[in-house]
Amino acid sequence: MKKLITLAAAFGLTAAVADEGMWQPHQLPDIAKQLKQAGLKLDPDNLTDLTGFPMGAIVSLGGCTASFVSDKGLVVTNHHCAYGSIQYNSTEDNNLLEKGFLAKSLNKELPAAPGSRVYVTENITNVTPQITNGIDEKMSGNERYAHIDSQSKKLVAECESDKAYRCSVVNFHGGLEYYLFKQLTIRDVRLVHAPAKSIGKYGGDIDNWMWPRHTGDYAFYRAYVGKDGKPADFSEENVPFEPEHHLKVNASGVDKGDYIMVLGYPGSTNRYRTSSEVIHTFTKSYPLSKELMGSLINDIKSNSKEGSDARIKYESMLAGLANYEKNRGSMMESYHKGTTEQRKIKLNQELRQWVNAKSSRQAKYGEAIDQLDALIKQNQQTAKRDTLLGYMGYASQMMSTASRLHRLAVEKQKDDMDRERGYQERDMNRFTQGMKRINRRFDAKVEQAMLFNMLDRYAKLPESQRIKDIDRFFGIDDGYKPAELKSKIADLYQNTKLNEEDVRLAWMEKPLEAFENSDDPFIQYAVKTFDARQKLEKQSKNEAGEFNAVRPKYMEAIIAFNKSKNLPVYADANSTLRITYGNVKGYSPKDGIRAVPFTTLQGITEKDTGVWPFNSPQKQLDLINKKVYGDYAKESLNSVPVNFLGTLDITGGNSGSPTLNDKAELVGLVFDGVYESIIGDWDYDPSLNRSIHVDSRYMLWVMEHVDGADNLIKEMDIVR
Amino acid sequence: MKKLITLAAAFGLTAAVADEGMWQPHQLPDIAKQLKQAGLKLDPDNLTDLTGFPMGAIVSLGGCTASFVSDKGLVVTNHHCAYGSIQYNSTEDNNLLEKGFLAKSLNKELPAAPGSRVYVTENITNVTPQITNGIDEKMSGNERYAHIDSQSKKLVAECESDKAYRCSVVNFHGGLEYYLFKQLTIRDVRLVHAPAKSIGKYGGDIDNWMWPRHTGDYAFYRAYVGKDGKPADFSEENVPFEPEHHLKVNASGVDKGDYIMVLGYPGSTNRYRTSSEVIHTFTKSYPLSKELMGSLINDIKSNSKEGSDARIKYESMLAGLANYEKNRGSMMESYHKGTTEQRKIKLNQELRQWVNAKSSRQAKYGEAIDQLDALIKQNQQTAKRDTLLGYMGYASQMMSTASRLHRLAVEKQKDDMDRERGYQERDMNRFTQGMKRINRRFDAKVEQAMLFNMLDRYAKLPESQRIKDIDRFFGIDDGYKPAELKSKIADLYQNTKLNEEDVRLAWMEKPLEAFENSDDPFIQYAVKTFDARQKLEKQSKNEAGEFNAVRPKYMEAIIAFNKSKNLPVYADANSTLRITYGNVKGYSPKDGIRAVPFTTLQGITEKDTGVWPFNSPQKQLDLINKKVYGDYAKESLNSVPVNFLGTLDITGGNSGSPTLNDKAELVGLVFDGVYESIIGDWDYDPSLNRSIHVDSRYMLWVMEHVDGADNLIKEMDIVR
Repeated sequence: MKKLITLAAAFGLTAAVADEGMWQPHQLPDIAKQLKQAGLKLDPDNLTDLTGFPMGAIVSLGGCTASFVSDKGLVVTNHHCAYGSIQYNSTEDNNLLEKGFLAKSLNKELPAAPGSRVYVTENITNVTPQITNGIDEKMSGNERYAHIDSQSKKLVAECESDKAYRCSVVNFHGGLEYYLFKQLTIRDVRLVHAPAKSIGKYGGDIDNWMWPRHTGDYAFYRAYVGKDGKPADFSEENVPFEPEHHLKVNASGVDKGDYIMVLGYPGSTNRYRTSSEVIHTFTKSYPLSKELMGSLINDIKSNSKEGSDARIKYESMLAGLANYEKNRGSMMESYHKGTTEQRKIKLNQELRQWVNAKSSRQAKYGEAIDQLDALIKQNQQTAKRDTLLGYMGYASQMMSTASRLHRLAVEKQKDDMDRERGYQERDMNRFTQGMKRINRRFDAKVEQAMLFNMLDRYAKLPESQRIKDIDRFFGIDDGYKPAELKSKIADLYQNTKLNEEDVRLAWMEKPLEAFENSDDPFIQYAVKTFDARQKLEKQSKNEAGEFNAVRPKYMEAIIAFNKSKNLPVYADANSTLRITYGNVKGYSPKDGIRAVPFTTLQGITEKDTGVWPFNSPQKQLDLINKKVYGDYAKESLNSVPVNFLGTLDITGGNSGSPTLNDKAELVGLVFDGVYESIIGDWDYDPSLNRSIHVDSRYMLWVMEHVDGADNLIKEMDIVR
Repeated sequence: MKKLITLAAAFGLTAAVADEGMWQPHQLPDIAKQLKQAGLKLDPDNLTDLTGFPMGAIVSLGGCTASFVSDKGLVVTNHHCAYGSIQYNSTEDNNLLEKGFLAKSLNKELPAAPGSRVYVTENITNVTPQITNGIDEKMSGNERYAHIDSQSKKLVAECESDKAYRCSVVNFHGGLEYYLFKQLTIRDVRLVHAPAKSIGKYGGDIDNWMWPRHTGDYAFYRAYVGKDGKPADFSEENVPFEPEHHLKVNASGVDKGDYIMVLGYPGSTNRYRTSSEVIHTFTKSYPLSKELMGSLINDIKSNSKEGSDARIKYESMLAGLANYEKNRGSMMESYHKGTTEQRKIKLNQELRQWVNAKSSRQAKYGEAIDQLDALIKQNQQTAKRDTLLGYMGYASQMMSTASRLHRLAVEKQKDDMDRERGYQERDMNRFTQGMKRINRRFDAKVEQAMLFNMLDRYAKLPESQRIKDIDRFFGIDDGYKPAELKSKIADLYQNTKLNEEDVRLAWMEKPLEAFENSDDPFIQYAVKTFDARQKLEKQSKNEAGEFNAVRPKYMEAIIAFNKSKNLPVYADANSTLRITYGNVKGYSPKDGIRAVPFTTLQGITEKDTGVWPFNSPQKQLDLINKKVYGDYAKESLNSVPVNFLGTLDITGGNSGSPTLNDKAELVGLVFDGVYESIIGDWDYDPSLNRSIHVDSRYMLWVMEHVDGADNLIKEMDIVR
């Protein structure tokens, strides 16, 4: 392995090195030998069958992964993936986050947060020709964008003729390939069980991305369908979904060195970006977004008392912000400490040299690489403004809701197929859910503070970057006065009715004229700034089209360059089904120290302070002190393993993914990566990249001994 | 070993468990089996011969340990043990601390700091009968104190009839046994070599007590004697001392699991204190002294600019304060986290039960234990005041110097044998050196701040605790006004002449009347408060005498209690020669993490920031980056080992002790313990107690490749 590491280090390559790689199912036969060598006992070909075992048991929750663990639609995922649903069912008086939740029978199960879905990928088709046929090299960016957009909408519409499915066309390698994903969409999802936050989120933000770790990051949903077995909206008549395949849960877990794999939906990586993009990201974008997230956290905390209804509403957003703020900070730290930048520059130079070494290559890739560089430069010029506008919508749900409702009225004037994505008929259910969900996460005082924060920053941009109509609306077009802006924002929140669910839902049905005549201040914002925002959107689509014309060529060059070294290439993560494999293994976070692959129950009592986030339930502490291990102790540890380390190549979106052993039995759930592998979205280092998994033994131990979830243990197939 | 650990944990015992124990040389035959089992290849009997090999090569520096490593009196110890001498030879323009120092020939060697000594222990005699004969159970505390004092002074005087020797009577087990130590005292000591502070103190206070560690904590002295081979004051005519024995230096070092031992002079432990003493220490004394040390550090830093002459003068004191402040804080943390308190209470109860179980035992020990408890209580009542007075003298050298000079005049009126220890003729050389040394560590502005700090705290004590004469002198006898005290202190420093060396030395010769008539304000302080301070001293001696009457009985009970379990007992450390043995071994500082036993050169580049204390010399960094390892690499690490961990039972005073392998070759120097073993002065935990050693390979690598000290490498016997 040493040699391969050196090679990777020398070339900055990101292909097929040791445990690196998020492989598409159809690629598995290409790496069958490596899988077998690593210890897989199943035939790798089995893994390519999406409807077979084990792939058929793996589902997406949209943003997280999960898996079926019973023939009655029981789904296991991470506690942090079900966090929104636990929160949704919590009130100040009955805080399920604090107490945990267990339905002892089906009728006690609670509806998950609105919009919760279980997606079962049933089919993946390469549709590259259908998408790219008809593309003309001379098309403008906008034309190219529109062509791809309409082609993929057609494919999606066709695919979704059966209403039980949701389909999407996803591009790989920046547009070199396109695949159509067909997913059965189960929309009655219920919360079955979650441990108390003091187990499921033990260590909180302090331990986030950290090892040693002691988090029981698991929770259970159940998928329900209509009596006909088809997906249906929530109804008491619905019955548990019966998946064709589900995972067995192995209660003996894994040992050091064992083969493990994770099947899931990793969200996004950037392993093939140019050095200029990498440098811009780490020295400009990340510092900016870290600062913005930190300031939003501060806004929320200083405008809502801990434990108050307002704070409970923002717990989920806070968790997300804290997670990403830490992530960005650590990424920057890793970047500045490590050699990523030098290696990315070197890789770019070597690619160039390889391209330039042959005139045929020069002809094929040379121009595209130049154009890509130019496009990147152009895109970076308005990056700060674009980021601020993005955060503005994120911070103010009132503002983004008004814009979306108005946009809906605009789009509704078109044929369905011509509408913007997100505003088509197929999107209306989700749109409605979104409109309903808002108040669960809304507090006017908090939002005002956050919106002011973002606008204050926006107002300080150079005039050339600002948008006149937005400036005019907020009264900062001739001179910015913070106090005036603050009172303007207060007015908006005082006079808007969009904070009422009925009002929002009613707006969904109103014609465009109603918007133009409305005196709701946020609706006015949407109307008055629409043209300007449309112009930005067009520019951005044109740019996307232009990128689409050159990025695939660049990726082609990279693939050819790697092929010349006999290295297979996996695509960047893009929220599609992938498999990553490796082993249970520790690492050395620094000279003189080794992170061993397992933590134990004793680590919980060591860490415990009685104060959140280290406030394990007393019952659990007592059991640990009495060494009540049940059937879940690992002999070599003389304790129950809590979390373990693996070498798997994962990223956000993999959360909740089952960790499988060599026979594809569930031995854990992946829920995090260690601090040293945070930069993994950009760069994989085999000596430092480690995934963190909750051990099946800990999950079962807590379920049996702490929470008394014997009904679920009985429902699952427990093997040893 | 597991069983023994459990036993120790159950009984809170501190005897003969695993690698625990600081054994007196004469005890080694008793533990010969254990030594052999641990891996010692030498005959344990050899270790009892103080003038043989290897004991003859081990020397004390007074507060630190060192060893001869050539037949020309070359002595190796820790950098932090030679720190004062390096500092003594440093100026703002020629800062040897920063640059390091290497004498390429004998005539380039520099005098060590005044008062530096090399003590070679040549004889240890049990003198318990001589000391205790004549003690009458009915004696008062003062009478008992005086008896022991005069008996031991007699023995010392007899022993010191040969002026080359310094002798002392040391009590063991609180007065159960007394030994007379006879030490050849070499008083011409010279600085030969020290690496730059950025190697020798790498990591500074941040890394102090920490693992992973990367400190090159070594330095070289040379012992000189007169041409006749006898100890002599510094003279250019002097020649290197030729010890009968010196250690070979093993350049292959040790490996994980290897037998190691440390021979040295551990200062002080408190493994046999009662639970009441332990509780008082950790909840009262340590918190107070931590606070005082922290405030003194603050006084020094805020009254001397970094890099200034004033600051350089206080570097050594700062280092000491920072070290102990951290030590106290960490001890308290360990104490409150761990189970020491419960176990000490339990041990006391069990001892009581064991004593009470038999009437003969009850008769023998019962009363003494009660008396001990009562004495401890009494002593604790004035503890805060006594601590403050102690720190006052430490903070103000002017104040303590005046008191000492005045006391000298008082004592000189008596026969030598009747004088107080420290004021006898035998002490005069050292006394003079002390008087000379003061200005090297004196700055009036800093001292004023420190003295005010201590007096300010003293002034806030209840009146009943304060000393009237001291109050009167400082004008706080009727109402304390900080501003007035400040100006009073400023006056003292403005008008004293004691900051001049000549003046101090002249006072050494002056009669008592001169003091009484002096207008030097600090001399006036000494005169006016003398009677009051004498009274305190008498009280304290009486108390010591009373303790001496009961502590030995208590220790006898403990020894008998342990004997009933077949466990040998070692005495608390008391700055006398001891041996501790064990193995090279890592440990688990917390669940999920393991400290591995070696750090490497790569850890230095990992830590390096270019800013003190992580500012390795560029030359060293370049060598590491180029992997220039010379002959010092450890194959399994693929690098040069820098520091390593051992299980040895050490404490302050062991600093500089040679770490020897199974053949008594030098494989390192012990210089610290890990954070988790800080409480080791009170309690030994085999799973957490680890010593930190600088590896001989790192020392030799730096000497050869960084500092070019080939003359010294040539002088030593390097073996492999």
